[in-house]
Amino acid sequence: MTTPAPSTGSLKLAVIPGDGIGQEVTPEALKVLEVAAPAGVKFEQTGYDLGAERYLATGEVLPDAVLGEIREHDAILLGAVGGKPNDPNLPPGILERGLLLRLRFELDHYVNLRPSRIYPGVASPLSEAVLQGQEVDFVVVREGTEGPYTGNGGALRVGTPAEVATEVSVNTAFGVERVLRDAFARAELRPAKKLTLVHKTNVLVNAGSVWWRLTQEVAAEHPDITVDYMHIDAAMIHMTTNPQRFDVIVTDNLFGDIITDLAAAITGGIGLAASGNVNPDRTAPSMFEPVHGSAPDIAGQQKADPTAAILSAGLLLDHLGHPEAAASIERAVLADLTDRAAGQGAARRTAEIGDAIAARVSG
Amino acid sequence: MTTPAPSTGSLKLAVIPGDGIGQEVTPEALKVLEVAAPAGVKFEQTGYDLGAERYLATGEVLPDAVLGEIREHDAILLGAVGGKPNDPNLPPGILERGLLLRLRFELDHYVNLRPSRIYPGVASPLSEAVLQGQEVDFVVVREGTEGPYTGNGGALRVGTPAEVATEVSVNTAFGVERVLRDAFARAELRPAKKLTLVHKTNVLVNAGSVWWRLTQEVAAEHPDITVDYMHIDAAMIHMTTNPQRFDVIVTDNLFGDIITDLAAAITGGIGLAASGNVNPDRTAPSMFEPVHGSAPDIAGQQKADPTAAILSAGLLLDHLGHPEAAASIERAVLADLTDRAAGQGAARRTAEIGDAIAARVSG
Ligand SMILES: CC(C)[C@H](C(=O)O)[C@@H](O)C(=O)O
Ligand SMILES: CC(C)[C@H](C(=O)O)[C@@H](O)C(=O)O
Repeated sequence: MTTPAPSTGSLKLAVIPGDGIGQEVTPEALKVLEVAAPAGVKFEQTGYDLGAERYLATGEVLPDAVLGEIREHDAILLGAVGGKPNDPNLPPGILERGLLLRLRFELDHYVNLRPSRIYPGVASPLSEAVLQGQEVDFVVVREGTEGPYTGNGGALRVGTPAEVATEVSVNTAFGVERVLRDAFARAELRPAKKLTLVHKTNVLVNAGSVWWRLTQEVAAEHPDITVDYMHIDAAMIHMTTNPQRFDVIVTDNLFGDIITDLAAAITGGIGLAASGNVNPDRTAPSMFEPVHGSAPDIAGQQKADPTAAILSAGLLLDHLGHPEAAASIERAVLADLTDRAAGQGAARRTAEIGDAIAARVSG
Repeated sequence: MTTPAPSTGSLKLAVIPGDGIGQEVTPEALKVLEVAAPAGVKFEQTGYDLGAERYLATGEVLPDAVLGEIREHDAILLGAVGGKPNDPNLPPGILERGLLLRLRFELDHYVNLRPSRIYPGVASPLSEAVLQGQEVDFVVVREGTEGPYTGNGGALRVGTPAEVATEVSVNTAFGVERVLRDAFARAELRPAKKLTLVHKTNVLVNAGSVWWRLTQEVAAEHPDITVDYMHIDAAMIHMTTNPQRFDVIVTDNLFGDIITDLAAAITGGIGLAASGNVNPDRTAPSMFEPVHGSAPDIAGQQKADPTAAILSAGLLLDHLGHPEAAASIERAVLADLTDRAAGQGAARRTAEIGDAIAARVSG
């Protein structure tokens, strides 16, 4: 995690609204981004039409030329991609591997950042006995370019009773160390200064030993950080019975995928969960997106909550070196959520929520 | 899932109390097993000293001769294995891979069975708004002999900055189909007749397609079963916001490991979670064990709750063809939990809980 000079002037933003509610939440995130941007920063937007709709219409997922163009931007804002569930014309993996993961891998988004916080007034599915009014506020640093997500593996005798299919999790000292360094640097910036490695070292002994060894090594450079370790299965228990104990969690790509959805659930749902696919070295643009999907069932009805997309725009500003602007978005969201908890604006449309948050940022 | 004739007469039971609280909960499970066994069934026990203590004292994990002996039994009851956390003399994986997983693989425990139920009076970490007084009662059928647990993979340039470590998830049509058949058969026996496949087909496309294809194929033979599919990350959300929706969950070895700990957490903790490592074809003995570990921190103090071990003994009886005896254990546990909820016997010792449940079974 480097802290380079803030990006200022005219910044090039690639916008991929995608499918379903992605089309509705993205304009709200842009609305808020616009008003939150500090003086001297202007976003020059280019829209990219990518996702299920384009694939179904043209067979194209992410043409190389489009990827080349996107690469020339300062940052990417993505809504959501994905078609109707079980659409036979859209086999699983096409968009995920071909678009989302391709962007993460090609643009070297090795830090997949997912802050998790129970905002005041937001209902958690956890009981009061668990929460006890204590703060839940942690961040998951999920590795984004390795592990079981590399697409290594294959299949033999497909479709026959003798089929064998493999998935290879690839873990390199190079890849693990860099994400650990980022996670430790983030832990340094937090009051609790705690880092928890989550893995399954007792079964995945090869991958586990790289993660374990490098955690010890990087920890030695951060004597002020309290480091602990938890198996992914045990993490399920702690997350639901004592989530207050977490500060920074660092974990592999697949465990991170799983634990961040659990984190989103216990902190009030994926309607609020933001994420950044970050290239900390800035060799390519980072990408910010809500954790939720395209939700075809409620799409086009202005029913979606744009808060996760808006918070993702905040992460984008933070990444570009504008933490104050990012904080102004978070404060505005917090105020809006407090209003909601007080029963105000219960049935607002997507755009109305965006307007309300934007007004608070500029106000 | 075959339903062979009940095993009667003198049955050979291999008992592996293991480490820590395993030593305390196992005698209680045996106590209850004894009184619950139907007329005409007698358990002839052989104890096996395996686990961290033996390894640390002798360097032995599971000698081939011992495995050979265990194989000659009708069933295995295991307490818990594992030493102190981060003991440098006990590297992660030694006992897990060398003992627990070796038993599961060698004895072909391809069905790892984990019933999950919120018993009346037991506190769940989920809020009343989520639970709404509705029943949570499902079973996870976790594949036990494939997936990322095979120990395939390896490492190159270990300990250097150029290290590469791999873990290979192996998935065969043979292995996936047989566990699916078992899961569908179990769904047939349940009132809700619902089966949910949990996987990550959109990223792990090779493994995912075997699971998906065979689920469709086996489903075609079970037109009365309602089948749905959920990604493992989405399952985190459903499990914490709407666990009532689950009936039978079938999933791979690693996803099953993760989801069953979450299931244990939301149903009141691993003090109550039982499991069976089942060889449905009975080509080798099945093994029954509580989901919890050896809990060195509370070991030797008679503080452990033996309920999970006792319920595991119930699964053992069920597997051997004695569902009525198994049900009598579950009823006794239920009554005991109801007493606890009423504030009775708050500070009972491990053996006192075992006595109370045994008394209810025989009473
Ligand atoms: C859609 C899918 C490829 C993706 C992932 O698994 O990473 C999603 O679940 C996420 O968490 O961003
Ligand atoms: C101890 C470990 C090898 C084991 C597993 O991962 O299967 C445990 O977590 C379990 O769930 O039984």
